Amino acid sequence: MEKILLLTSDNPLYQQRLGTCQFTDDPDAARIWLAEPARAAALLQQGHRPDWLASTYAGVDALMAPELPRDYQLTNIRGLFGPLMAQYVFAHLLSRLRELPRYAEQQRQGLWQPHGYGSLEGQTLVLLGTGDISQHIARVGRAFGMTVVGVNRSGNASVEFDRVYAVDQLPLALSQADVLVSVLPNTPASYHLLNEHTLPHLPAHAVLFNVGRGHTLCLDALRHQLDTDALAHAVLDVFEQEPLAPDSPLWHHPRVTLTPHIAATSFAEQVAGQFLDNLARYRRGEALQNRVCFTRGY
Amino acid sequence: MEKILLLTSDNPLYQQRLGTCQFTDDPDAARIWLAEPARAAALLQQGHRPDWLASTYAGVDALMAPELPRDYQLTNIRGLFGPLMAQYVFAHLLSRLRELPRYAEQQRQGLWQPHGYGSLEGQTLVLLGTGDISQHIARVGRAFGMTVVGVNRSGNASVEFDRVYAVDQLPLALSQADVLVSVLPNTPASYHLLNEHTLPHLPAHAVLFNVGRGHTLCLDALRHQLDTDALAHAVLDVFEQEPLAPDSPLWHHPRVTLTPHIAATSFAEQVAGQFLDNLARYRRGEALQNRVCFTRGY
Repeated sequence: MEKILLLTSDNPLYQQRLGTCQFTDDPDAARIWLAEPARAAALLQQGHRPDWLASTYAGVDALMAPELPRDYQLTNIRGLFGPLMAQYVFAHLLSRLRELPRYAEQQRQGLWQPHGYGSLEGQTLVLLGTGDISQHIARVGRAFGMTVVGVNRSGNASVEFDRVYAVDQLPLALSQADVLVSVLPNTPASYHLLNEHTLPHLPAHAVLFNVGRGHTLCLDALRHQLDTDALAHAVLDVFEQEPLAPDSPLWHHPRVTLTPHIAATSFAEQVAGQFLDNLARYRRGEALQNRVCFTRGY
Repeated sequence: MEKILLLTSDNPLYQQRLGTCQFTDDPDAARIWLAEPARAAALLQQGHRPDWLASTYAGVDALMAPELPRDYQLTNIRGLFGPLMAQYVFAHLLSRLRELPRYAEQQRQGLWQPHGYGSLEGQTLVLLGTGDISQHIARVGRAFGMTVVGVNRSGNASVEFDRVYAVDQLPLALSQADVLVSVLPNTPASYHLLNEHTLPHLPAHAVLFNVGRGHTLCLDALRHQLDTDALAHAVLDVFEQEPLAPDSPLWHHPRVTLTPHIAATSFAEQVAGQFLDNLARYRRGEALQNRVCFTRGY
């Protein structure tokens, strides 16, 4: 039986879930690595090489550095993050819309005082990316009566979206957004896609979410928009540098909500389930599911 | 042209929206009243009587008191509250699940610290009531991957629900709930339906919402469940006495979230729209839409 190298922060949990597998700590004795991308990257850099590297994350940008090898099969996790991302986005969107912190403070004060509010119904949700994560967010948006607009490379239609624009029509899409959510992965095409030229197309009342990768968003351009009343609020879960630097002015910006890269976490039991499915394919000599294309970067 | 009596807290807004109508302050000169139920009840009590009373609320229990007359046509507002109720329920549910107050505090402290969390996916949402408001909440629940169970008088199936139980199977339905939401109106059949006999069927980890009417829920029984770790949390928007008494122990109960009857508010522009539709029917001598049945109470 082939030996597996575990490179995760939950190794004991994975060993328990993958009880019938054999494990090794020697990278050269393992043709299969089940690994967090950054940990695998370190071993690849040292010259070790798996036959198949199963990433425990969706985001594999740590493995896309030009100096790293690409002569192995890479798979990532898919289909698990959409529901979690959707829950994160609507938690923040609805808490803000319905002023939960204000009512919590009133409860502390014993104060019965209603306030007016708006509705998501009829608002337009613009999603950068139209893959499975975006489709989950889109489905929830539609259940709330929102119009859902997608942006992808081709502009080809995608299920759950009312309209889809190609990325070269990004300004047109942004101009329609009451809510903008980027779930884009870290690829050369997404680097600072939201910048001083594109962000000004967002309406001043819009709320921006970045739950994909930090490098999609130019933070200097974002701060300029927020500081000039050209954008209402930003909810940021991902950053080019993580953890965010302690002296970043974003921590205490009144129009920024920050979270520590938690919008969608890999739950070990689910990751293990996808891994076991693929392991059975591997043993049968079949093509692996969720293969990452090194050219596209996802 | 028939004269209309306005009895709302937004009279100037309604006068603007209903620009082509004629208004009067004399209840006996107006065959049509557009009114908040409690204000209309006071005039009915004094012996005045409309031909048609258009309630600006969905909840018309203030007009169901046995001493009040029933020899007039009563309509209420429908179809506007489902999206707002769904937004309220998921705002509170998701804010709690994803610990938004905890992350807000960490942001104030400049602390980057992820925590684990659960998912709505696979949880069971039990809704008391299967009408249009419940169907909206159910639709969003299903978009989040929840199983949605309804409870109504007949047990007849309803769109958007995975299963529906009759109210005499309430304990069976409650025992399946990760989340319970009551949207029941104030009727004799719903009085203290959630009481010391039924509430113990809820799992200890469940979260209870009351967004219908206060009298559905026996607060003493609720407090007993919360205080004995037999129920995780309650989110209450409606109460038998409103505003909630300043000395109620619920204000500062660690397992209770209170809001001042704001889960779904009548937006005047939408209420005015439904009223104008019905006014055209009234003038044509057609049956009014959204007629309230005095026997059922909704």
